Amino acid sequence: MRGALRQVEQALERWVPADAPAGLGEAMRYGVLDGGKRLRPLLVRAACEAVNGHADAAMRAAVAVELIHAYSLVHDDMPCMDNDVLRRGKPTVHVRFGEAAAMLAGDAMQALAFEVLTPGDASVPPALQARLCALLSRAAGHAGMAGGQAIDLANIGRALDEAQLRDMHRRKTGALLEASVLMGAATGASDPSAWTELSTYGAAIGLAFQVVDDILDVTQASDKLGKTAGKDLQHNKPTYVSVLGLAAARDEAQQLRRAAHEALDRSGLADCAHLHQLADLVVDRES
Amino acid sequence: MRGALRQVEQALERWVPADAPAGLGEAMRYGVLDGGKRLRPLLVRAACEAVNGHADAAMRAAVAVELIHAYSLVHDDMPCMDNDVLRRGKPTVHVRFGEAAAMLAGDAMQALAFEVLTPGDASVPPALQARLCALLSRAAGHAGMAGGQAIDLANIGRALDEAQLRDMHRRKTGALLEASVLMGAATGASDPSAWTELSTYGAAIGLAFQVVDDILDVTQASDKLGKTAGKDLQHNKPTYVSVLGLAAARDEAQQLRRAAHEALDRSGLADCAHLHQLADLVVDRES
Repeated sequence: MRGALRQVEQALERWVPADAPAGLGEAMRYGVLDGGKRLRPLLVRAACEAVNGHADAAMRAAVAVELIHAYSLVHDDMPCMDNDVLRRGKPTVHVRFGEAAAMLAGDAMQALAFEVLTPGDASVPPALQARLCALLSRAAGHAGMAGGQAIDLANIGRALDEAQLRDMHRRKTGALLEASVLMGAATGASDPSAWTELSTYGAAIGLAFQVVDDILDVTQASDKLGKTAGKDLQHNKPTYVSVLGLAAARDEAQQLRRAAHEALDRSGLADCAHLHQLADLVVDRES
Repeated sequence: MRGALRQVEQALERWVPADAPAGLGEAMRYGVLDGGKRLRPLLVRAACEAVNGHADAAMRAAVAVELIHAYSLVHDDMPCMDNDVLRRGKPTVHVRFGEAAAMLAGDAMQALAFEVLTPGDASVPPALQARLCALLSRAAGHAGMAGGQAIDLANIGRALDEAQLRDMHRRKTGALLEASVLMGAATGASDPSAWTELSTYGAAIGLAFQVVDDILDVTQASDKLGKTAGKDLQHNKPTYVSVLGLAAARDEAQQLRRAAHEALDRSGLADCAHLHQLADLVVDRES
């Protein structure tokens, strides 16, 4: 998938404007270029490949979902949220550019995601543009990522049971990962049963991602992660490790990997190799 | 336009969710309900009326543009930006709910704008959904509102000449007001010359709005404005009044009103009465 990754980087480089006024472009680019695993863009493209979908639309969706992810990190790192100084091995945006610039850059990155999805030319069919905006906005908003962050914020220092923890993470991290798969799938012809299985796959890896994140937070060092390790514990946040214990969290990640692979097998889609690989990458990653 | 205003309030009430998790919905609703002149929604609807456009689409566009406007106020009032405690006669969102909740509520309001524009049913033609998302995202983002805010932020305490001031305000306030007119126009059949005149109208009232804002900031009291008066001076921000003087700023507002009316006259559109009235409202308002 190295070629796909390079193309995603090039597209981000092209579509995130260097010339936005008064340093805004610089802060936006700092927040999204040169870093990150690009898992969401790779999922969009792999799902597009599986359904033999519209490649240009998928590239736009890949960039858009990464912009939403990156803006959420920029805002999440700010002093009024997690107050974090390290991200992707670099000082966070607010440390580098100031809080006001970080907030504006995040806001502009969210708007840019929807700009990228709606080219004025005919390169992406308008109905597909609308569908991609619908999927992304719902995953990013109150019922998805922002809702999950609100639950997270409201439960610092509180005990959550496993169901509550799962609900929080399904929204906070899972919604955008699942949307990545579904946006890729939406670029192809509609097949309801394949759609359902891809949705199951997306939900499984979305949850697996967060379970593994919680494990890595306690088992890895900051320099390996490129972000501050141990901060869930430090912020007294409920995690899969604190709720289930480390061994059960590891079992859970393996079960979710199996569920993801089985959904792909049931989908009947021929070209799922990259989606299979990405499920493994989510669970086996070390940072 | 009282009926139109009531319908906009009802639509906001319906579409801004009370049940978003962990208090997020409450903060979002606090930030957008029960207040505001709803100038942008009224512009969308009046422009839709002028082109005999798609009423359901215009109502969604009206709500979406108000959500973008309201989120920008929520973020703009935060301590790292203008640090303001009063808005629409009430404590600002971060004062009432805390900074983290205010940031998240603003983020979720932006996403909700694009949700509202992209209903899953067939109530709005998909190509129109895409067009509305394209117009709104560009007006909200780096080339529009967020870009204008970045210029504003970078020039606190600095002297701007009139051209620079106009460029800043065209983006910061004008882009969203102009987009309101164009989104309304987009709901009807496409007529390039009417579109051009509506765009001219939108740009003129967009700039007039900010000129009048700058005038009111120095001539009105906080209780009349529903927000802190005199804060441009206090923050040492360049305004039309500080650059042109009060008398010339008043002349400028009148010239822009005339330009707006003349553009409507040239448009050849029959049903422009409400657009004419809104141009007067922008210039004659006292808060």
